[in-house]
Amino acid sequence: MSSFTHLNSANVGTFLNSFDTVLTDCDGVLWLGSKAVPGAAAAIAKLKNLGKKIFYVTNNSTKSRDEYLKKFHGLNFEANKDEIYSTSYAAACYLQDINFDKKVYIVGSRGIAEELDNVKIKHSGVGPDFATNGSIDYVHEGVNLDPEIGAVLVGFDDYFSYNKIMKASSYLKKPDCLFLATNTDETFPVGLDHLTMPGTGSLVASIKVASDRNPIVLGKPVPYLFEAIAKRHAIQPERTIMIGDRLNTDILFGANCGLKTLLVLTGIASEIDVEEIQKHGSSEDKKMIPDYYTDSIGSLAKFIDN
Amino acid sequence: MSSFTHLNSANVGTFLNSFDTVLTDCDGVLWLGSKAVPGAAAAIAKLKNLGKKIFYVTNNSTKSRDEYLKKFHGLNFEANKDEIYSTSYAAACYLQDINFDKKVYIVGSRGIAEELDNVKIKHSGVGPDFATNGSIDYVHEGVNLDPEIGAVLVGFDDYFSYNKIMKASSYLKKPDCLFLATNTDETFPVGLDHLTMPGTGSLVASIKVASDRNPIVLGKPVPYLFEAIAKRHAIQPERTIMIGDRLNTDILFGANCGLKTLLVLTGIASEIDVEEIQKHGSSEDKKMIPDYYTDSIGSLAKFIDN
Repeated sequence: MSSFTHLNSANVGTFLNSFDTVLTDCDGVLWLGSKAVPGAAAAIAKLKNLGKKIFYVTNNSTKSRDEYLKKFHGLNFEANKDEIYSTSYAAACYLQDINFDKKVYIVGSRGIAEELDNVKIKHSGVGPDFATNGSIDYVHEGVNLDPEIGAVLVGFDDYFSYNKIMKASSYLKKPDCLFLATNTDETFPVGLDHLTMPGTGSLVASIKVASDRNPIVLGKPVPYLFEAIAKRHAIQPERTIMIGDRLNTDILFGANCGLKTLLVLTGIASEIDVEEIQKHGSSEDKKMIPDYYTDSIGSLAKFIDN
Repeated sequence: MSSFTHLNSANVGTFLNSFDTVLTDCDGVLWLGSKAVPGAAAAIAKLKNLGKKIFYVTNNSTKSRDEYLKKFHGLNFEANKDEIYSTSYAAACYLQDINFDKKVYIVGSRGIAEELDNVKIKHSGVGPDFATNGSIDYVHEGVNLDPEIGAVLVGFDDYFSYNKIMKASSYLKKPDCLFLATNTDETFPVGLDHLTMPGTGSLVASIKVASDRNPIVLGKPVPYLFEAIAKRHAIQPERTIMIGDRLNTDILFGANCGLKTLLVLTGIASEIDVEEIQKHGSSEDKKMIPDYYTDSIGSLAKFIDN
């Protein structure tokens, strides 16, 4: 079981000496929505100055790497395209690795489409697809299904609709049609008491039920993103730290990949959530206990200075 | 365990003498979409002639009882409004029984709205609610949430959308906000090889994940519909038969309410599904084995004649 050590000025030296590579989540760690977490850009810059390799590892599928790069630079983060591992890119990597040669039905956004375009994989589905009235007789009027589709790929889609669930689950009736999900995050970390912003996991759930199938998941906590990085860069798991705000994705991902883990409290998880697991969790749950925690990645920048 | 007896001309007499009241499912038993199952209207007429009380018990929430009555009469079924127990009506019964005095956020269709109007319960949500573009910043631009909402009621909604999942799960952040689902049917029985028509269960699943809450379910296999009928009519469970096409809703509902059960093979379940459960099912699964089965409710009409 991990130690759940509070990071501070006294132990930051030992901490920094324990890794060469940093994998960090984005939403809830580096920014919340369109606003940077104070000190986050400084923390990344200082880690780079200390010679650490940085990879941005995000379950978010809404942006292509090019679009992410614009967001990073707009919020003053040092970042290069080959440091960015989003699940939109992971989907393209996965399909390319299996030499997929059919067409993908995307329940998701333009970010995924751009990454598939980059590797010349055909796709359809991005954009609105709503019932034109509330009482279509789908059975007798029919639904446009494309016989070329060989995979259903579900990511975040705020155009999510009944028609999309129907098409996805109809394609998935073919046993050889692949079912991929970028991630299964239940919600986005919006940090507001009155608002829940449903995540990809919520959309995936409805297609799972309608199709009676389970997807291959690319995002954290599944190790696929780590494998994709390790395939392209020389990194050692035992000299790598994963930074995140969610226990059941980021921290569990770190544990599943044999990495050290640092929890920041700017997103979903709180100190109390970890203490709850320490007290009442199963041995499986206890994989979600991080090695270190700190209130914010901004604090790390301060500790490095002192 | 039930006997799974094939209904035929020889045993139909014993069968008919074993009940006074018939509860029958509609979709998959009496009709498929907008087309009546051959002989179904005749079977109902003959059962009524034999003095049997009939109740139409459907998980479908899309129509009010008045709309159902039009469908019944259009397909030449003998039916009265007080014989119809749809989950749209069940929702109104449930809310009235608990003296609900707030407003209901409906993820569903006009049928539910009409039944709530009949008992003067306020509601909103029916109709389209789509993102106006694919990249709304909900966190900073805000979402219109109505402080009067005290219940989220999920039924079938082919206008289902991301915005609706977001609003439903945001309302459900309040612990005293009720969460009701008309049913959790995974799919509709459309009888087509290439098309899956997702059911209410698929929509409920996404809201369950986003809200991290479980709904109170009104539809089969939960006994609520039987209780609602028994509250208003003198019926004895041991002298009642439930006719249906789905094992995990209709037949299990019958078992849960202490009724006899008849499976028809015009909808979702096949003989093989039952044999699978007989061979490999758990004792819990075996509650889904019907007492009788026949290929169609139309055959029952023929057996009665002979």
